[in-house]
Amino acid sequence: MNYGRLNADLIEELQSLLNIPVKYDEESLDRYSRDETAELKAVRPEVVTFPVSTQEVSEIMKFANRHLIPVTPRGAGTGLSGGAVPSYRGIVMSFEKMNRILEFDEANMMITVEPGVITGEIQKLADRHNLVYGGDPCSSESSSIGGNVAENAGGNKVMKYGPTGYHVYGLEVVLPSGEITYFGGKRLKDVSGLDFVHLMVGSEGTLGIVTKITLRLLPKPKYSVALLVPYPDIDTAIAAVPGLMSGSGVVPTSLEFMDGSSIRAACSFLNIEFPYADAGAHLIIEVEGNSKDSIFDDYVKLGEAAIEAGGLEAFVADNRNTRDKLWKARKSIAEALAAISPVHSMEDVSVPMANIPKLIKRSEEIAKKRGLEMIAFGHAGDGNVHVTFIKGDLPQEDWDRNLPLAEKELFDETTELGGCISGEHGIGIKRKKYLASIVDEAQLDLIRGIKKAFDRNNILNPGKIVDL
Amino acid sequence: MNYGRLNADLIEELQSLLNIPVKYDEESLDRYSRDETAELKAVRPEVVTFPVSTQEVSEIMKFANRHLIPVTPRGAGTGLSGGAVPSYRGIVMSFEKMNRILEFDEANMMITVEPGVITGEIQKLADRHNLVYGGDPCSSESSSIGGNVAENAGGNKVMKYGPTGYHVYGLEVVLPSGEITYFGGKRLKDVSGLDFVHLMVGSEGTLGIVTKITLRLLPKPKYSVALLVPYPDIDTAIAAVPGLMSGSGVVPTSLEFMDGSSIRAACSFLNIEFPYADAGAHLIIEVEGNSKDSIFDDYVKLGEAAIEAGGLEAFVADNRNTRDKLWKARKSIAEALAAISPVHSMEDVSVPMANIPKLIKRSEEIAKKRGLEMIAFGHAGDGNVHVTFIKGDLPQEDWDRNLPLAEKELFDETTELGGCISGEHGIGIKRKKYLASIVDEAQLDLIRGIKKAFDRNNILNPGKIVDL
Repeated sequence: MNYGRLNADLIEELQSLLNIPVKYDEESLDRYSRDETAELKAVRPEVVTFPVSTQEVSEIMKFANRHLIPVTPRGAGTGLSGGAVPSYRGIVMSFEKMNRILEFDEANMMITVEPGVITGEIQKLADRHNLVYGGDPCSSESSSIGGNVAENAGGNKVMKYGPTGYHVYGLEVVLPSGEITYFGGKRLKDVSGLDFVHLMVGSEGTLGIVTKITLRLLPKPKYSVALLVPYPDIDTAIAAVPGLMSGSGVVPTSLEFMDGSSIRAACSFLNIEFPYADAGAHLIIEVEGNSKDSIFDDYVKLGEAAIEAGGLEAFVADNRNTRDKLWKARKSIAEALAAISPVHSMEDVSVPMANIPKLIKRSEEIAKKRGLEMIAFGHAGDGNVHVTFIKGDLPQEDWDRNLPLAEKELFDETTELGGCISGEHGIGIKRKKYLASIVDEAQLDLIRGIKKAFDRNNILNPGKIVDL
Repeated sequence: MNYGRLNADLIEELQSLLNIPVKYDEESLDRYSRDETAELKAVRPEVVTFPVSTQEVSEIMKFANRHLIPVTPRGAGTGLSGGAVPSYRGIVMSFEKMNRILEFDEANMMITVEPGVITGEIQKLADRHNLVYGGDPCSSESSSIGGNVAENAGGNKVMKYGPTGYHVYGLEVVLPSGEITYFGGKRLKDVSGLDFVHLMVGSEGTLGIVTKITLRLLPKPKYSVALLVPYPDIDTAIAAVPGLMSGSGVVPTSLEFMDGSSIRAACSFLNIEFPYADAGAHLIIEVEGNSKDSIFDDYVKLGEAAIEAGGLEAFVADNRNTRDKLWKARKSIAEALAAISPVHSMEDVSVPMANIPKLIKRSEEIAKKRGLEMIAFGHAGDGNVHVTFIKGDLPQEDWDRNLPLAEKELFDETTELGGCISGEHGIGIKRKKYLASIVDEAQLDLIRGIKKAFDRNNILNPGKIVDL
């Protein structure tokens, strides 16, 4: 693409449309050229903007069309695939300043927010009203709801509540042309035209810019209990999962796993103690319910089954403090990893739940064959595994040569097991070259055709998902 | 559009691609030019085909492209908007013969079926394995799952389980070009490219032809209880609904309402007795759970609240027979109406749940102003109301003049209340002219652009949703 460049005159024109000063100092350009993806090849934007209203977002897009400038929308910058990082310089549109909760509609159990709101704020507000927001990415304390929508963030409660998209009912959207439109609304049923709401969710900010989000809330279950079950090794832990899911008649809210290395990384990072920290792997199983009796039945049944499948013990965390501690460890793994082993590649493969044991086994074989260290953790109950290859002491050139081979092999295995290459982090920049090799040409053409229908000039987040 | 016509040679060529004889006798052409939409202006196809495999579906589409023949895919023909009825003659592609259950995958709690399978069969198979398929359109005994997917059928359990799309995880699709592709799969999380699965759902067979459907099943709750609560009049019944939903902390599985006329029509049609059959309206409230204690708490709480809001009594149906009887009456209303008042227009408006009382009041005002009879029933808990205008003794010319005015007024009111013109029946032919007047031009353009990306020659179900 032959994009325009932003000279001083154009930056002045852009500034005249906006309330908050744009930034183009070196430090800002550097900061907005990264997210939390390890080792991302970064391109710096030319300018960073901070719109405060839908109208300003629209003005930026009209400006961008006039001058053919690429625009990269950005939430809190916690992405793990480079979706909010420019591929072609231009404008970064940060939603830091559009972070208001616009309406809490208790009668309809819906909340409407701006994209810059931190997801954890929505969870806490719902909780105070005895409701629950079902989305729960591990990054909930730092990621924004707009980013969650863009990547259809998953997290820890997908088995019971579904991913982000299952909670999204209405979206105000600025189209790449600058036109403002509204998809869906506060109604539970809608088949009036195409399902644009769910086409927007997970489209990584390539089709339109979400400026208001209406989410459904649900009544909060009265009781929650988490079990922590250590296992001697990861294969035993993972082999237990399909039986726990399909045999119990219970849909746990969460069923997470962490191998020994990841739990020890989290403990060292947080400087905390953890029971059986030397175990080969742990499962965390959480159940919710409105009756003490039935939740007791559920967790006893799950705990017994988990031990029968080789668990060393089943710790019951039935108070908030203990549960919070478990989850803090689980949720900090990615951050711990970044601190301890900065050169790594965190994958996000997702397979049918019954195929998780095979996926873990094959991942181990691939890592071994390619001489890479590997740790694994993730959302066992929904089949989404963060296999993570680590450089460790490997010479740089071996890492550079072997990582792409290992990734390709992992993605091929995942595909063979009925899975996909990203469950919740997205394609972005990180996985673009692999998507094109896995999805058939007809689908790539459809993605391109839809992109063209939305964004004639290819100025909105170009270079993500597929090349045009 | 300048479509080709099917002469004897072309019909022979088409037949040579297919196992089952095509039909073009008068009776068949007549039969396949209708669905269950009252008073639909029908166009006859030129030929009806009965493919038995994905390959045959693909061959028909390639044939259609070669000769520019429009193709209308069709499930069981129970649609209520004309989505499966030709607008431009050509080929009807009936899925009657692709009606196999292909795989029941208990380990992943997923089932894969052909589009012609009757939805009730899936419900029953799941039930026998102690699982539940969450989709429950009133037509479940006669509609096919392919049609449910095409219209994103809703039904009676959407508050708890979501509409059809929430259960669909994988789709084999024949694109309009004849190419065969696969969207999604048996994984709970997938953000690897655009969400084609949910773009297909509800697209009314205009973007591709679904030839295999993979659905998620869930553990079956152990207990179900239904309450039947008669009210003196419809306004009192409907005014009770928002409080029952948001005040109780319970998500009922179903919260249905029927006005007095609709329940009496059903009773007379089925020749059954019904408690308080002379009441002004009834609510049916169903709750599910795994613990006897908690379900007792739930229904007592809901029953007391329902009576406090003006209910005359709360009948408890806690055994299958009584529950089945209630549901039989509720589910037969549409059929009863067609038999008793064949000249009618059944609407499908959907609003935020708290706005249902306003919607009913305004509908009554519109009917009165336009001199039409009106009955109302539907899914109160999810905001989806089947306001139905009836001709009754009105002279034909008054009906012809006043119905479109009443519909337009109803849709404008619905839009003002934050609703949409169809919650579960679709746009099809019936509502096409209204959609274009309610949705903004930018969205109509996007629908057209997406349609073009899928179907360059506009041969797949042309004339539905919007005109190109």
